[in-house]
Amino acid sequence: MQPIIFVINPNSTQAVTDGFDKALDPLRLANGPEIKSLTLKEGPPGIESQLNVDSVTMPLVALVQELDQANPNRPKAYVIACFSDPGLHAVREATSSPVLGISESAVLTAMTLGQRIGVIAILRNSIPRHGRLFGAMGLSDRVVAEAPLGMSVVELAETEKTREGLKHAGKLLRDQHLCDVIILGCAGMAQHRSWLQKQLGISVVEPTQAATSMALGRVLLQW
Amino acid sequence: MQPIIFVINPNSTQAVTDGFDKALDPLRLANGPEIKSLTLKEGPPGIESQLNVDSVTMPLVALVQELDQANPNRPKAYVIACFSDPGLHAVREATSSPVLGISESAVLTAMTLGQRIGVIAILRNSIPRHGRLFGAMGLSDRVVAEAPLGMSVVELAETEKTREGLKHAGKLLRDQHLCDVIILGCAGMAQHRSWLQKQLGISVVEPTQAATSMALGRVLLQW
Amino acid sequence: MQPIIFVINPNSTQAVTDGFDKALDPLRLANGPEIKSLTLKEGPPGIESQLNVDSVTMPLVALVQELDQANPNRPKAYVIACFSDPGLHAVREATSSPVLGISESAVLTAMTLGQRIGVIAILRNSIPRHGRLFGAMGLSDRVVAEAPLGMSVVELAETEKTREGLKHAGKLLRDQHLCDVIILGCAGMAQHRSWLQKQLGISVVEPTQAATSMALGRVLLQW
Amino acid sequence: MQPIIFVINPNSTQAVTDGFDKALDPLRLANGPEIKSLTLKEGPPGIESQLNVDSVTMPLVALVQELDQANPNRPKAYVIACFSDPGLHAVREATSSPVLGISESAVLTAMTLGQRIGVIAILRNSIPRHGRLFGAMGLSDRVVAEAPLGMSVVELAETEKTREGLKHAGKLLRDQHLCDVIILGCAGMAQHRSWLQKQLGISVVEPTQAATSMALGRVLLQW
Amino acid sequence: MQPIIFVINPNSTQAVTDGFDKALDPLRLANGPEIKSLTLKEGPPGIESQLNVDSVTMPLVALVQELDQANPNRPKAYVIACFSDPGLHAVREATSSPVLGISESAVLTAMTLGQRIGVIAILRNSIPRHGRLFGAMGLSDRVVAEAPLGMSVVELAETEKTREGLKHAGKLLRDQHLCDVIILGCAGMAQHRSWLQKQLGISVVEPTQAATSMALGRVLLQW
Amino acid sequence: MQPIIFVINPNSTQAVTDGFDKALDPLRLANGPEIKSLTLKEGPPGIESQLNVDSVTMPLVALVQELDQANPNRPKAYVIACFSDPGLHAVREATSSPVLGISESAVLTAMTLGQRIGVIAILRNSIPRHGRLFGAMGLSDRVVAEAPLGMSVVELAETEKTREGLKHAGKLLRDQHLCDVIILGCAGMAQHRSWLQKQLGISVVEPTQAATSMALGRVLLQW
Repeated sequence: MQPIIFVINPNSTQAVTDGFDKALDPLRLANGPEIKSLTLKEGPPGIESQLNVDSVTMPLVALVQELDQANPNRPKAYVIACFSDPGLHAVREATSSPVLGISESAVLTAMTLGQRIGVIAILRNSIPRHGRLFGAMGLSDRVVAEAPLGMSVVELAETEKTREGLKHAGKLLRDQHLCDVIILGCAGMAQHRSWLQKQLGISVVEPTQAATSMALGRVLLQW
Repeated sequence: MQPIIFVINPNSTQAVTDGFDKALDPLRLANGPEIKSLTLKEGPPGIESQLNVDSVTMPLVALVQELDQANPNRPKAYVIACFSDPGLHAVREATSSPVLGISESAVLTAMTLGQRIGVIAILRNSIPRHGRLFGAMGLSDRVVAEAPLGMSVVELAETEKTREGLKHAGKLLRDQHLCDVIILGCAGMAQHRSWLQKQLGISVVEPTQAATSMALGRVLLQW
Repeated sequence: MQPIIFVINPNSTQAVTDGFDKALDPLRLANGPEIKSLTLKEGPPGIESQLNVDSVTMPLVALVQELDQANPNRPKAYVIACFSDPGLHAVREATSSPVLGISESAVLTAMTLGQRIGVIAILRNSIPRHGRLFGAMGLSDRVVAEAPLGMSVVELAETEKTREGLKHAGKLLRDQHLCDVIILGCAGMAQHRSWLQKQLGISVVEPTQAATSMALGRVLLQW
Repeated sequence: MQPIIFVINPNSTQAVTDGFDKALDPLRLANGPEIKSLTLKEGPPGIESQLNVDSVTMPLVALVQELDQANPNRPKAYVIACFSDPGLHAVREATSSPVLGISESAVLTAMTLGQRIGVIAILRNSIPRHGRLFGAMGLSDRVVAEAPLGMSVVELAETEKTREGLKHAGKLLRDQHLCDVIILGCAGMAQHRSWLQKQLGISVVEPTQAATSMALGRVLLQW
Repeated sequence: MQPIIFVINPNSTQAVTDGFDKALDPLRLANGPEIKSLTLKEGPPGIESQLNVDSVTMPLVALVQELDQANPNRPKAYVIACFSDPGLHAVREATSSPVLGISESAVLTAMTLGQRIGVIAILRNSIPRHGRLFGAMGLSDRVVAEAPLGMSVVELAETEKTREGLKHAGKLLRDQHLCDVIILGCAGMAQHRSWLQKQLGISVVEPTQAATSMALGRVLLQW
Repeated sequence: MQPIIFVINPNSTQAVTDGFDKALDPLRLANGPEIKSLTLKEGPPGIESQLNVDSVTMPLVALVQELDQANPNRPKAYVIACFSDPGLHAVREATSSPVLGISESAVLTAMTLGQRIGVIAILRNSIPRHGRLFGAMGLSDRVVAEAPLGMSVVELAETEKTREGLKHAGKLLRDQHLCDVIILGCAGMAQHRSWLQKQLGISVVEPTQAATSMALGRVLLQW
């Protein structure tokens, strides 16, 4: 049976889901795994605090278990498309299918594209939360700096303002912190990746693409 | 007004709450902060998986907010008495009072009692979860080894078997991993601390005592 | 044009190439990227020392440049299929296509499958070399132990002896070092992955599959 | 018998002792442990070099042993109130009572208040010395930046100049290094803690309060 | 027999060899080990990329083996005088004599002269390469910052421009990153060490002197 | 003027001084720096606790200052020949000549001889003290294990018993911890280095030789 990758947006902003869904098109192959983007209806408009993160964990677990039951015979993989990797380890316990978080996958991918990783966060208060995640992964030495946009998830819809902020943050990471690879630290910036990469002249990692890219092989291997 | 420290057991096993509550007696001063132990009624019998951890986060947040509202004028502090520190950072966002996790506090306290820290876990599968916690704290270099008892939280009620396991694990950590301080990696072992310390001849940290001990000063300073 | 992933065995032992080539079958999709395994003719029978590693770097660069020129219009990706990642960073400079090393990819993949990573090396003297690699990746904290088989690359052809060694090393890593995920530290063990995973009951990562799996998405995204 | 906490200022500047002594008032409970601040008469006016640090170690040991003998039956704890933690480990060997250093305690406390810790040092040449301390604690990853005031211990008596310097250094740590918690890196800044916290809007840790706060519980537990 | 230290410049720019050769004069003792500087004829004009690094590895191995054979009875030591330590570990396998890399030796020496190490690189793209080296050494925590000159190896011949760049980079490392020791990150800056040290007022390490200094004792001990 | 290296034994056991003094002979060149071994008369028979360490710091400072004054015109270097590096940083402040500690130098030297460093300590309680030192150096990741002899400094005079212990500890480090280089963790084992290296088949570093070897070049460069 054709495998399927469920890419779940834990926030309820459909525009975010739509944005990364389009960015996943190059990973859709004629006879390859189906890639299906979903929006968690219980999610807040944006995941912008630890409370937001933790509020979606159990709903994510429930959704994955439901999808598991609804698709009993297809090889499946799950991508949790929020840069705080909410519920990642709980969902891994709840299903026997591969589960990838976009924060984890983005950093792992960035490690193959550069040595000094910079992250563009949406809000300043995302940074301590990300710091705990990178520490838990044992990767604090590789993520050398983080720069916040100072914008909420919903505000990311304002393209011009977002691009201005991305360029400013990207240059800071590249020029002051000497980063040679940049991660977009939110699932809501997918449409700006190649634009920003051209602006900066160094690799830019879009996390949902990174995770779904990793999921592609994993769903076929069923690791 | 007299300050109060709420020590919340996120699992529903009252014997665990009773065990650590008694161990907190030395921290109860005539005119000092009240120390009140509570059991989270929504909790599972033991927190033994990431799913268990994440299932209690939002209930813990709700309970703390309720306690905040019920005690508007008293200086308050909260201790989350499970060695996986469930919801620690979410609860910190949800209240302006000091919040201490017993895992975090146990490691911080152990750092003042020895250089090579060993942890006795209840189950083998607790160890990766603890590893993520210690990594998030940036302390992987200090926690040099962990040894599991292979017992569930509920089984800890069997005193003799528990002590046998603690002694075995403690000796392994002391003699093979050269630990000079041991942490009891579960809130349900409080009554064995001084016994084990005598057996091993090195410091043994009981995490709920460690956290409540830290909370004592913090509730007075209101940091 | 159909993308192509070149998976290059830097040693000259065709049996190794054949072994992992077969293991890559699940990643071959009807309309997906072609996956082509190659053997570096200049390579030694096995890469078993730093001298061996460094002897294949420039030949690998030359081969990749030749393949780049011979396939001007196809999207390409390269996998260097030796666990010492010979020439990885030089090859990355020599081509604009994605290049993945199997050691790097195996560790990155293992990080999504467990917290305490163990590696089964072929020879004891591989371990310091791997240590330098993991250090360069900033991942020393995650790779908690390594165990050698004490067998050369060529000797891996003896299936029974190899499996005995793998089982022994795997149990040591699982039981003494408390690893919850194991990496096969050589491209020549591909046929034993699922067998060993069943024996041990924890995830086992085959590095060439891990890297080619990552390459699948990357060749499509052309990052 | 009523426990006692001796808080020893290893420098001979009484104003420093007086400053932190007053800051300890919230930790003094009607029936709680007595908190007694002392000045080491052999100390230099300020501990501003490694030579200064090492010059007070043996006098500190002698003083603690004298206090131990003079108070044979009271539960005791000791706080060494200099941010270089002079003689901390020697004093721990010299007494069976709990001994806390204010540098160690400040960092441990800050770890519960934020993720990215910044330290305000008095002098630039304090920074390498602190770096050795944080490294010995295994905490280099958590203390992300340090900023010097460029003032001696004695100069800290000039309130206005000190506050100007604290505000400047605090903003640098908060805004450029993205610290979310600040430590006052000297025992002589106690009266500025809450003022600075208000100025910066993030937690500020006063190290003598932090250590005495930890000592409060520890003297009761006699760990 | 009189011992000999071969100091090999892996790039073909004789001016670089001449520059460090002169700087080694203080290490030449009347009856001490001979110190002989050589230029690798196969080398590129400067080692400025990973491709450059890897292109000289096998030639370095061949040269060392030739020197070993040509000097069968003299105690020998080898210094590889390029800051990327090309072929260091391969050469160590190829000879039983001590082999020192100037990057490794410079960092090890700097560790005895200061706590916060800064490195002046020639080019920005040297920095990720150095990062991998420092990571492999396990020293990422000690090298706190790196600043590039933006000059090629050959351009270093322009004294005035080089000194201007060194002073600028050195001040950045000293004042913004609070480094207390600086390493010249290229073998081609030897004549500027003491000049720069005077300008900055902190220790400056010249890597070829550092490595040859370490080699002096090692050739006598034959470790 | 002929340079001089003072190698100071901070304990008062002359046999220790005599032991390493003899081991320094290969570093004595006809026209090279004089190497003079001294015994600190104020020292305890062995440095076996932090109290011992700290008790010799100020006497070491005084002795170095006295030697500085008594030898005003000679280039000088100092080696502190105790594996706890007592007073290392204070002595560095007290003199403008190079100062090397044998613990620091031994680890730095071992880093050029292997990847996984093991240390043989005299006593078990030396290990936490060494751990603090290695942490302060930022080298915890490179020193992978330590094994104690369980013998005092004075007991090291019993050659046979010492060698038996060294062989046992060395094999443990080599075979269980996979160390590829061993450090003798006390100045009193100098006469056993080459014997032990032959027994184990891997490099063994004698710390006083390592430090004096480094001092040789440093006194000539006067860094």
